[in-house]
Amino acid sequence: MGIVRRKISLARLDHSLMTAPRHDVLCIGNAIVDVIARAEEDFLAAESLIKGSMMLVDTDRAEYLYSKMGAAIESSGGSAGNTAAGIGSFGGKVAYFGKVAADHLGKIFSHDIRAVGVDFATAPLEGGAPTARCMIVVTPDGERTMSTYLGACVALSPADIDADVVAGAAITYMEGYLWDPPAAKEAFRQAAKIAHGAGRKVAITLSDSFCVDRYRDEFLELMRSGQVDIVFANETELHALYQTADFDTAIAALRADVGIGFVTLGSKGAMVVAGDETVEVPVRPVERVVDTTGAGDLFAAGALFGLARGLDYETCCELGGLAAGEIISHVGARPDVKLIDLARERGFEI
Amino acid sequence: MGIVRRKISLARLDHSLMTAPRHDVLCIGNAIVDVIARAEEDFLAAESLIKGSMMLVDTDRAEYLYSKMGAAIESSGGSAGNTAAGIGSFGGKVAYFGKVAADHLGKIFSHDIRAVGVDFATAPLEGGAPTARCMIVVTPDGERTMSTYLGACVALSPADIDADVVAGAAITYMEGYLWDPPAAKEAFRQAAKIAHGAGRKVAITLSDSFCVDRYRDEFLELMRSGQVDIVFANETELHALYQTADFDTAIAALRADVGIGFVTLGSKGAMVVAGDETVEVPVRPVERVVDTTGAGDLFAAGALFGLARGLDYETCCELGGLAAGEIISHVGARPDVKLIDLARERGFEI
Repeated sequence: MGIVRRKISLARLDHSLMTAPRHDVLCIGNAIVDVIARAEEDFLAAESLIKGSMMLVDTDRAEYLYSKMGAAIESSGGSAGNTAAGIGSFGGKVAYFGKVAADHLGKIFSHDIRAVGVDFATAPLEGGAPTARCMIVVTPDGERTMSTYLGACVALSPADIDADVVAGAAITYMEGYLWDPPAAKEAFRQAAKIAHGAGRKVAITLSDSFCVDRYRDEFLELMRSGQVDIVFANETELHALYQTADFDTAIAALRADVGIGFVTLGSKGAMVVAGDETVEVPVRPVERVVDTTGAGDLFAAGALFGLARGLDYETCCELGGLAAGEIISHVGARPDVKLIDLARERGFEI
Repeated sequence: MGIVRRKISLARLDHSLMTAPRHDVLCIGNAIVDVIARAEEDFLAAESLIKGSMMLVDTDRAEYLYSKMGAAIESSGGSAGNTAAGIGSFGGKVAYFGKVAADHLGKIFSHDIRAVGVDFATAPLEGGAPTARCMIVVTPDGERTMSTYLGACVALSPADIDADVVAGAAITYMEGYLWDPPAAKEAFRQAAKIAHGAGRKVAITLSDSFCVDRYRDEFLELMRSGQVDIVFANETELHALYQTADFDTAIAALRADVGIGFVTLGSKGAMVVAGDETVEVPVRPVERVVDTTGAGDLFAAGALFGLARGLDYETCCELGGLAAGEIISHVGARPDVKLIDLARERGFEI
């Protein structure tokens, strides 16, 4: 018995006004290779790391932390890169913009994202900083703590925004982390303008609560000015955005500020607020949480894939939960299995 | 209730004749970074790969195969490198000789092996071939099929054999794969000579049946001339070595040719033949075989650690089985947990 629900009319995303999209989703983000190691809780305190956060580090700090970390594996990452890989794994048509260097890690990143069917053609940086890496320590509870060296990502600029690709994507999705490298936010604004000019939608993830603290006013301005139509946030980010400890207050503010808000609630599931509508969806429990890296990114993958295909909010959240559940059951932030196969096994007719 | 058995007298390994060893084990091998991706069975046929084997590839073939492989993770590997990491994870004192290049993958390899406590000081190759990589495709049954580009490994030579380290290790362990790069076999012979001159023991793994086919006569000569004292083999390699389909015939030949033979029998366990002694040890079943990469390497880690610590053959095999069981339950050939903790949880008093 398949799960079949009403489909949201494509017109809801204004698809009727445009030519058929070439891509379901275009993702734009910092192109990063993850360096993942296990560590005990006391490692975080000893190295002044804030559990669950993403902190930016310079070259020296990156070298120092790597020297202190245990044996690691390398796996392509980057928040929006993980989302793009997830959408590809669902069988979605997806493109990615992000800046790697012309070095070995850049080659790894490019290979891995193309290997799951993502169209990735951003020119690599020649002769500048190396490809970005994110040192991730995973504590025994599965929580991940990240230290990111941005490297070549700081070179992402409006010149890297291919207007045809933006105009041809049903949804352009960008990570809040793009506010960290200086020129990327201009690339972001430009992409949003092109997308809206072509009658498409623009989505953003708030990325993490520290990122929200750094760019709160700008994120709110993006939402209130209509530059973004869809926001992804977890509870902590939502509370940080509206500087309130009261969930209902934050949700009401989100509802007022953006067309569609997806809020992930960890093991409690997810929630959508969209105009007068409110949808709450529980999450299927995961047997063992191994590594939470990429949980939010993969939730967004499922939800965006669903949205682009005109599925209702409940199904979007369920696909997001399915993808997030897969990613936290193993080390690394890219799916180990084809998400479309997993979804079909679970009865989704996609 | 701990598992305590008779200990083999240290004299059995002639420890009484020498100064106390600085290292339990010195491992020598091809220093390789693994590039691991999942693939369906038909990928093997389409790319002319022989399931379960290790084939050597040149630069062009390596580039081609990588372009065809799915999204991958990178993890330090190399047969003897995995064994060294396993011994380190058991809390053993262990050193490693192997040749990386002065490049990013070389840095990854060096970091990962040192991070688990292995002493690794072989000078990296400057301005030559890049660090070796092994492209591993893992099929749904968990079997791994490997294509190795040897790169900098071909530069390992007798000049890299630090005689003090060899003379200070209770056991010097080398992989049969060292016969592939041209100068490494001379390094191997030199190390064996130094080890025996210092009253130490020399061990070798036959590596894989294709490797045995390439170097059968030389491997037999090493054993029969007494250059190696301890041999590790699986059933397939043993049959290849003696070119017989009859297990008992092969076992009898092994018993005649070498002091101690460890034979792994997959899910049936392991067997030791040593002079008149024969020990058979069943294996604790593994819940789910995810990726068999490194199973033999980690069996050797447990067994060598046990031997160097003077434990009896049965315990050596059990420690080997424990380490192999851990490694096949996840992707990658380096332990995900501390093997000494796992061993103690299972009641071993080590």
